[in-house]
Amino acid sequence: MNDTPLLTPFPRVAILGVGLLGASLGLALKKRQLATRVLGVGRANSPSLQTALDRHAIDESFTDPVAACQSLAAGDLIVLATPVRQFPDMLQRIAPHLPPGVLITDVGSTKSQVLQWAHDLLPNTVHFVGSHPMAGSEQKGPAAARDDLYENAVCLVCKTHSESSIQNSELSPTARITALWTALGMRVIPTDAATHDRWVATISHLPHALAAALVNTAAADPASLQSIAGGFLDTTRIAAGDTTMWTDIFLTNRPAVLAAIDQFAQQLQTFRTAIANNDEPAIRKSLDSARTTRQSLADPRNKRNSE
Amino acid sequence: MNDTPLLTPFPRVAILGVGLLGASLGLALKKRQLATRVLGVGRANSPSLQTALDRHAIDESFTDPVAACQSLAAGDLIVLATPVRQFPDMLQRIAPHLPPGVLITDVGSTKSQVLQWAHDLLPNTVHFVGSHPMAGSEQKGPAAARDDLYENAVCLVCKTHSESSIQNSELSPTARITALWTALGMRVIPTDAATHDRWVATISHLPHALAAALVNTAAADPASLQSIAGGFLDTTRIAAGDTTMWTDIFLTNRPAVLAAIDQFAQQLQTFRTAIANNDEPAIRKSLDSARTTRQSLADPRNKRNSE
Repeated sequence: MNDTPLLTPFPRVAILGVGLLGASLGLALKKRQLATRVLGVGRANSPSLQTALDRHAIDESFTDPVAACQSLAAGDLIVLATPVRQFPDMLQRIAPHLPPGVLITDVGSTKSQVLQWAHDLLPNTVHFVGSHPMAGSEQKGPAAARDDLYENAVCLVCKTHSESSIQNSELSPTARITALWTALGMRVIPTDAATHDRWVATISHLPHALAAALVNTAAADPASLQSIAGGFLDTTRIAAGDTTMWTDIFLTNRPAVLAAIDQFAQQLQTFRTAIANNDEPAIRKSLDSARTTRQSLADPRNKRNSE
Repeated sequence: MNDTPLLTPFPRVAILGVGLLGASLGLALKKRQLATRVLGVGRANSPSLQTALDRHAIDESFTDPVAACQSLAAGDLIVLATPVRQFPDMLQRIAPHLPPGVLITDVGSTKSQVLQWAHDLLPNTVHFVGSHPMAGSEQKGPAAARDDLYENAVCLVCKTHSESSIQNSELSPTARITALWTALGMRVIPTDAATHDRWVATISHLPHALAAALVNTAAADPASLQSIAGGFLDTTRIAAGDTTMWTDIFLTNRPAVLAAIDQFAQQLQTFRTAIANNDEPAIRKSLDSARTTRQSLADPRNKRNSE
């Protein structure tokens, strides 16, 4: 990470959506002095904006995203942090009011669809870079926000097609967004939208689908739940996650998620067949292979203590 | 738990198998003074016995289970703590040498098969009660043993058919075994072998099969693993578990595991169909249902801090 360009703090950052991810971003930006002023946009009928203000995750609150964007200038940053399927509405509303030279990114969990929306709806006077900071929790809302939520996690960054047209900035939009997440303590991996969507379908969206289906399977025999232990609880932790966010994820990454489910279902059926056939070598091979892979994976969360 | 009968300490407890579960039991028995002397039985060509001795999990080591059993008397306890499929061999070896009135239990993860073996192989002068303390870790061996491994976890206890023939003991064998696990800090749930096997197939064996299949699915696209986050790691933690132990579990609980896999596969296909059809209400209903159930589950491990 030593060759990551230094980031000049953003004069203003407007965070559209002050839930867990948006409010945690505000806290982290202010803690690390990466933004002079943080603007938060939320719904008028929700207590989230007040909570974000009270927690000093944002300096100023707006219920109208247009008003927030109109107070920005070239060099400022907009971060989309609402559930993904609200992005098109949000982009359509703010598009006519965006100052030229403003930089836009997001924290959404799917990327092909998001980059398509950005391409279709934004003027070519602004720059959009897709981000997916892979941090979160099964909690939601600004009350659960943490200034270290993003630390030591991975951020996948997908640049737009228009990147090459950039001329007159010190850092390219992608380099600025990369430097931002790096400055927040993340490990940035550059990729393209299709690869991103395939990866996260397997390592994030599929696990969520499995956790939910496992909980629903066990709930069909409720008495079994009285004897749950750590294994079941860890395997299903993510099933407690926010329904709206995950519904959006499954609906905006459909082809990749369906492919991942099918690949998994085939693995499971192979294992089922081995059990049905009393095929000890096949069972052992499958378990050994999983064990070796799983043991090779480092837990980035442990770095908080060991670094 | 106030009505649990008080347990008189066992003069001698022989633990057959001094791996994680066996050695942790030894440590816990000694810490709580529930056994005057703990005998450990292990393989001659393995360092486990020495490690168990060094850690004071056992007082005396044996490589011959017959010798260990011959030093016991009525009122003493034998605990089978090897992988489950070694039970028949072990029971056959010790059966001719068991002092009348000795109590035998196990820590195996399946019960119908184990109770059948006990019924077929043990003399009717001894008493067998099946136990399944639902504690463990993805580590193995006596080096990973902990004296609090069993605390605040659930133990399922299945009595044998012969229980009603007991006459001359203060506590029935089932009551003594129940009192033992309770004294070790566990929440004992009495059940029968068939119910036990159905429950654990769903809440323990199925999650392990899913975790292994998920790791193997992701490993087929190795680049995806560089971006793993907490969700994937928690969902797959148990896939790092001991291969031999889990192979035994799947092979000794086949009918219940196959049924659980089939019920799960149907849940997953229903969810897949909802995604494929862009059926937002169905996706949301499934996620909401899983979320509500998961949020209702208390994590017994948290009691270590809160009690």
